Parts: sequence; structure tokens; C-alpha cells
Amino acid sequence: MAILVVGSVAFDSIETPHGKVDHCLGGAATHFALAASYFTPVRVIAVVGQDFTAEHEAVLTRRGIDTRGIERANGLSFHWKGAYAGAMDSAKTLETDLNVFARFEPKIPAEYKDSEYLFLANIDPALQAHVRSQMPNVRRVCGDTMNYWISDHAANLAKVLRELDVLLINDGEARMLGGEHNIVQAAKKVLAMGPKTLVVKHGEYGATAFFSVGSFDGGVKMLHPFRSPALPLAEVVDPTGAGDSFAGGFYGYLASQPELTPEVFRRAMFYGGVMGSFAVESFGTERLQNVTREEIDERFKLFREISHLEYAEA
Amino acid sequence: MAILVVGSVAFDSIETPHGKVDHCLGGAATHFALAASYFTPVRVIAVVGQDFTAEHEAVLTRRGIDTRGIERANGLSFHWKGAYAGAMDSAKTLETDLNVFARFEPKIPAEYKDSEYLFLANIDPALQAHVRSQMPNVRRVCGDTMNYWISDHAANLAKVLRELDVLLINDGEARMLGGEHNIVQAAKKVLAMGPKTLVVKHGEYGATAFFSVGSFDGGVKMLHPFRSPALPLAEVVDPTGAGDSFAGGFYGYLASQPELTPEVFRRAMFYGGVMGSFAVESFGTERLQNVTREEIDERFKLFREISHLEYAEA
Repeated sequence: MAILVVGSVAFDSIETPHGKVDHCLGGAATHFALAASYFTPVRVIAVVGQDFTAEHEAVLTRRGIDTRGIERANGLSFHWKGAYAGAMDSAKTLETDLNVFARFEPKIPAEYKDSEYLFLANIDPALQAHVRSQMPNVRRVCGDTMNYWISDHAANLAKVLRELDVLLINDGEARMLGGEHNIVQAAKKVLAMGPKTLVVKHGEYGATAFFSVGSFDGGVKMLHPFRSPALPLAEVVDPTGAGDSFAGGFYGYLASQPELTPEVFRRAMFYGGVMGSFAVESFGTERLQNVTREEIDERFKLFREISHLEYAEA
Repeated sequence: MAILVVGSVAFDSIETPHGKVDHCLGGAATHFALAASYFTPVRVIAVVGQDFTAEHEAVLTRRGIDTRGIERANGLSFHWKGAYAGAMDSAKTLETDLNVFARFEPKIPAEYKDSEYLFLANIDPALQAHVRSQMPNVRRVCGDTMNYWISDHAANLAKVLRELDVLLINDGEARMLGGEHNIVQAAKKVLAMGPKTLVVKHGEYGATAFFSVGSFDGGVKMLHPFRSPALPLAEVVDPTGAGDSFAGGFYGYLASQPELTPEVFRRAMFYGGVMGSFAVESFGTERLQNVTREEIDERFKLFREISHLEYAEA
């Protein structure tokens, strides 16, 4: 089933210990859409400037991604400049130029209205709520947010959270949103705000999902959290977009399945980790553009191999 | 098969958001021995002062732990005072009184000489090497160390590392010892120093094992790292000794098995996480004293449940 994603399509200038790139295609919606495109049809709503060329668009369309919802505005696209050093576990933001993104008013093309899965990438919760309200018949809604919206736009964010099937955020965001140091306590508080499921991303340590009643189709309750691994990588070239790629793999797989069962959810978490592990292997979206479904399934097997008690290798 | 452990038996004064305790029984060898005692016979070599009473000794002997190698010296036992706050991911040391531990000269009782498994807890690598040299016929040697020995006693530590089957350290120590930010690169460097296997403990995120050729009996090679989970806990009362309890569960299970296969190793990692999860449920060693083998195996199942793709719950 098709996923409609709303979020940023942007240009990133990134410096890591492995090199630097200038104005490469990035943005949450871009990483998400590319990762999800290996599992299910994806449609994008975003705004770009005149620096977004046919070549950039082809990066998406080559993967079958529907770009009719990408609006062209006068001016430049959103641009982010950041650097990673040392353990590369967090970026230092050097520049944020919102440009045309500052006046983003998401419009949903008629052709997108039948999308059954909605992903609200990390943007102003007022815009997330607006898009959500335009899609009354979606089957599932999954979303992301960040510190700035949690601290300064709490009321708007609260409205979005109430209608989410899955909220995907990182450790720091979960602790901040829940107002608790302990991640289980934080998760309880966050689930009480509305999301049926909370997925907390731990970067190089994988991710943990917490469930409330009603997380699954058919009244199935999962009593315990679920932890999925991340692949220990000898070289992380560029961590930018790893979380969005996780979300794309996770949600793309979910949307490709007829029913949401605990088994499907678990595999989705693994596919999230798989797509995140590919994303960081190159700068920008390069690896996400050229990975194959065979490589994805091979790596899925590897994720099982490194985390399951049964030894299947060799 | 019996494990001989050499390390600290000490008193801890600990403050956490859940309360405080004064001079409760602790020390790496204590936590290790209690955790391992649920799997295999354990013998302890340590030094204590006159404040170590028959009651303290009974904590160990009630679990069947052989305490004949615990030497009584004039003076007070090693005492550590520390506090945890916030996310409780690291302790703030407030006081370290080495006391009789400053003059620790490990002596191995004749009755201990046939121990087949040796665990060198975190002490001066010169003492670790001394004990190792007295046990020429042990079947396996596993050890721990810390930042201070890595930075200031590198030459002595190098000798110990050369003879280790398994080195168990945390993320920060692995990065420091390997001189690399990337944990896979750090692990490669550490394995090149001698240990056949490196287990890196990630606290609340579980642990990762890295293998070199020869890690397993019968020439089996495991090509990939292995990741074991930690249990998301709603209440961490006191993290002190969690790493030593992990080591005890891990090594205790290994020593209880006739052969070291990849499957046995994987289960040992899970049992390590299980014992670590019990250890933090109470101050000091309280939970490790009264947990049952049934509870341990129940939690082992839970570890599988929260990390495996197959949904077995309900």
C-alpha cells in the first residue's frame, strides 16, 4: 500500500572524518522515501527551490517515487550544513538556511488522497496536523519530531501525538518528551500522550519499541518491549539521514504487509536497522539509491545472525 | 567446572535517586562470584579487613562459594563511595579507600589449583599476570580491566591480554584500549593484542562480542560479531556491579558447559545480560543473593522474547 510522506527535501553540506560534500540531496523526506521505496510505493509532499533540478528529481523518480507533490517555489531549497567528529554520534550544526521551507504550506495532490499510510517527517507539528486532517481515511499514521518542537510547540505536538499509530524518535527526544531519565518510564508517559507504539532509536545500538494496548491488528497485545539490533560497522561515512532511513525501512515494510502482527512489526524494526546501516555507508543518499533488494534481504539475514541465539552462519 | 576469581571484595557506600546505603558488601569479585554461583562452583581470592564479618562471609558461602582464598588482613577492607544521578549511566566516585587492598598479594590455596576457569577481575594487571602464571593448567582465562590500567599500566596489561580467551570491558574502555572511536576498528586493534574474544558491554543497550580466529573449540570460526540485548527496566535501583554480574552470568554459564560452541557463547551472553538485569534491581548484592534459578531461566526466555523475530509470547 502507498505511503504518503510529508517532510523536507533539502540540500546538505556535510563534513565527517571521511571527507566532505557540498549541497548534496538530503532532507528527511528524501531519505525516508528512498529507503521505503524498496518495499512499497511512496509519494512525497515537500517544497523545493530553483536549485532543485531535474537531475535531483530523477534520484527519486528512478526509484519509482511519486514526486507530483513536490512544490517548486521561488528561492533556494532548505540547506543544512553540519559536521561530525570523533565517535560521530551527533552532528554539530554549522548553518541552517530554511529558505523556501520557511513558508512551506503542504498541499495534497488529488492523486495522493487514496494513500493508506501517512508518514509525518520531522516538521512543524502544525503542518503535520494540517496534513493529517486532510487525510481522514488513512489506515495508519507514523510520525517523527525533534527537541525544538517538543520544547517550544508542545500544544501543537500534543494534537499530532494523539492520532499517531507509531512515533519514531531518538533516546534524547524520548526522555525529553516523557520528562523522565529512565527510558521505560519515559516511554510510558509518551504512550499516554496517544501513540499506540513508540519506537526509540539508539543510533549504533539499535532501537526499542514500546507498545500500548491496541498496537496491533485484531486485538493482539504485546506485553514486552522489542529490541532490534544495529549492525556494528567498521566505517560510518556519514550518519546524516540514518534515522529517516530507519523510518523508511520500518514503515515501508509495514505498508507492504496486509496485516500488522507482532511478527510483521519485528521484521519491520529489523528492516529499519538494515536501511539505516546502508544509509551511513556513503555521503548523502548515494547508497540508498543503488542498493538492491537482494542486498537488503542479505543484510536482513545478517541482522538475524548477529542477534539470535541459533547459530546459522557458514 | 570450577571458576577461580581474583578481585576485590569490598564495601560500597552508594547514593542513587532511589536511596542510599552505607558500607554494603560489594566489589567486583563479590558480584561476579554471586552471579556465577547459579551456574557453576566458584572460588574466590581476595583480601579483606577486620570489618569483614562472618555475616558477610555467609553471603558468599550460602551460595556455595568457596571463600578459603579470602585473606584476612589487619585494617579495613577496600571501601568505595559513589553516587548516581539522572540517567544513572555513570557513577561519580566520591571516595576510594584502598585500605588493605593496597597491599594485596594474591595467594592461591592448594585446593584451588585444579580450577579450570580463571576470571581476572579488574585489579592491577601485575597481580592478574601473577595469578595467571600460578595457574598454568587452566582451560580458559577471562578478564576485565579499566581506564586507569589502560593508560598508566599499559606494559603490564599487554602481558595479560596476550593470554586471555575473553576480555570483557565497556565501550569507553574498548575505545581507549584500541585507540579508535569506531567500536569495530577498536575491537580489531584489541583482538590483535591477544584476546581471542572481546565482549564490549554497552550498559542499558546490551553487549557486543567480537571474535578472532580460534575463539571456539574445534576450530569453528564465527565471522560476524554477536549482539545480546539488555532488558529495558522501569526501575534501576543501583547500577553498581552490573558489569561484574554480567561477567559472572556469562562466564558461569560458559564454565558449566562441556564445550565452547557459538551457541553456548550466545547463550552465555544472554545469561550475562540476565544477571546484570537482576543486579541493578536492588542496592548492593541483595537481588543476586536471593534470585532463583527458575527466575533466571524465566528471564532468559524474556531476553529471547524481546530480541527475536519469532513472536512466542502470550
